[in-house]
Amino acid sequence: MQTSIDCIACFVRQALDAARFFSEDSVVHERIVREVLESTARMEWNEPPPVVGQRIHRRLRELTGHADPYRAVKERHNRMALALLPELAARIDHAEDPFALAVHLAITGNIIDLGVNGQLTEAHVHESIETALARPLVGDLEGLRSAVTEASNILYLADNAGEIVFDRLLVEQLDPSRVTVAVRGQAVLNDATRREAESAGMTDLVEVIDNGTDAPGTILGDCSEAFRARFEQADLVIAKGQGNYETLSKARKAIYFLFMVKCPVIAADADHPVGTHLIVNGTGL
Amino acid sequence: MQTSIDCIACFVRQALDAARFFSEDSVVHERIVREVLESTARMEWNEPPPVVGQRIHRRLRELTGHADPYRAVKERHNRMALALLPELAARIDHAEDPFALAVHLAITGNIIDLGVNGQLTEAHVHESIETALARPLVGDLEGLRSAVTEASNILYLADNAGEIVFDRLLVEQLDPSRVTVAVRGQAVLNDATRREAESAGMTDLVEVIDNGTDAPGTILGDCSEAFRARFEQADLVIAKGQGNYETLSKARKAIYFLFMVKCPVIAADADHPVGTHLIVNGTGL
Repeated sequence: MQTSIDCIACFVRQALDAARFFSEDSVVHERIVREVLESTARMEWNEPPPVVGQRIHRRLRELTGHADPYRAVKERHNRMALALLPELAARIDHAEDPFALAVHLAITGNIIDLGVNGQLTEAHVHESIETALARPLVGDLEGLRSAVTEASNILYLADNAGEIVFDRLLVEQLDPSRVTVAVRGQAVLNDATRREAESAGMTDLVEVIDNGTDAPGTILGDCSEAFRARFEQADLVIAKGQGNYETLSKARKAIYFLFMVKCPVIAADADHPVGTHLIVNGTGL
Repeated sequence: MQTSIDCIACFVRQALDAARFFSEDSVVHERIVREVLESTARMEWNEPPPVVGQRIHRRLRELTGHADPYRAVKERHNRMALALLPELAARIDHAEDPFALAVHLAITGNIIDLGVNGQLTEAHVHESIETALARPLVGDLEGLRSAVTEASNILYLADNAGEIVFDRLLVEQLDPSRVTVAVRGQAVLNDATRREAESAGMTDLVEVIDNGTDAPGTILGDCSEAFRARFEQADLVIAKGQGNYETLSKARKAIYFLFMVKCPVIAADADHPVGTHLIVNGTGL
């Protein structure tokens, strides 16, 4: 999807949030915000929003020399999710429809993303999960279920740290032997890289590859050739999170998007209100 | 107060909101947002936020040829407030502390401001007033009370349309014979000008002057000489709304600010949380 004019103010706010994560120096904060204002004024607004996120985070790494300031947060979120895993796995075992619950939990795991700039405790995550699971799962669950039944080579695109622990529950339902999980090629925001896939235990379960880039989404033209080949070969792609939806919603591919609708622009694009736990059948969109 | 780095994203969002109010043409929306991005990247961030609001609205008037697109909204808000006036006046008459209730209502009137971009009904305003009055009135009420007792020449700086109807209740408590009410010199946002002071019935009660400018606040250097002289002569200034606080909080004057705290930047500056109904003694700040 293209950037909306409503995204522009959000870019500025996110740039400041990120700058504060990278540095306590107000000179760095002001420099980044000014640069984002200038570059956003000049750029074409026909690229997906994660392209801007990629640029902001590259520049912050240059300015501060920090390669991965979210590393401690990502590890903390993985540990919190791992503590909840046994209970959630048991719930799936006893569920009437284990696949549906695993999909719902994989989407719900994205609430951990909201904790990047605040204090998120295990109790809070636990409570948020219960609240989130009480919401209906919206979209093409049955389409996903049959696509999964027919697929022999599933590429699963992960999103954030923490959330990737919840993804294990769904990967187990998919049959790990035919699943490859892809993470970001380089640290950006709290997105999962190989390191977080390892600490989440995902590498013990399936083959984990990376996409070769540092975008908070999957910009195919920017991914490694190796990743693109795997993307082509897959007969089903399952893409987690808004960033992957924003960058792949126009891809010609058998693809399902699983995400929480977090902003009004995505809500308008996907035609479901903010807060929806959504499965979008992106095949032929 | 100076613009905070946290205000920058808000400028962009407000520019888009205003552009949509001025025009349905997406070319105008994009042009305004791009211009705000460019000019904000270049400007010094040491002026109060309303300076930016003033520039955005001047440019929108130039681009669209509309002098006052908020005129119908302002009249509607005045009419809604006028419908509530008799009941509110009766409540003040029967109150234990009529002055305190009039101050509280004058601050509460600012909730009408929130309706500019949405549908606001009389029932909704009525309900919001009850909710708002249930909040405590915070700040130096007794300081204001004695300043008012001692003053002989009070300049009352109004804020929005709708709200200015509520201001009548406080002006009556102050003794209208020693009060002058000032409004904006030209239409900007939903701020009250002479026209709205008239339709609110304020001109029947006291002398109404204007400040000679089109800023959504009171930028003294930009006001008319006549207004500045009246500001100097007043032995007490009562300034309504965030815009007047943002532009006058450093003025050397016997001044009290009455406003609802609406954003985290003002909350930090005034040291009270968002939502507070606040009286700030700005004398010697």
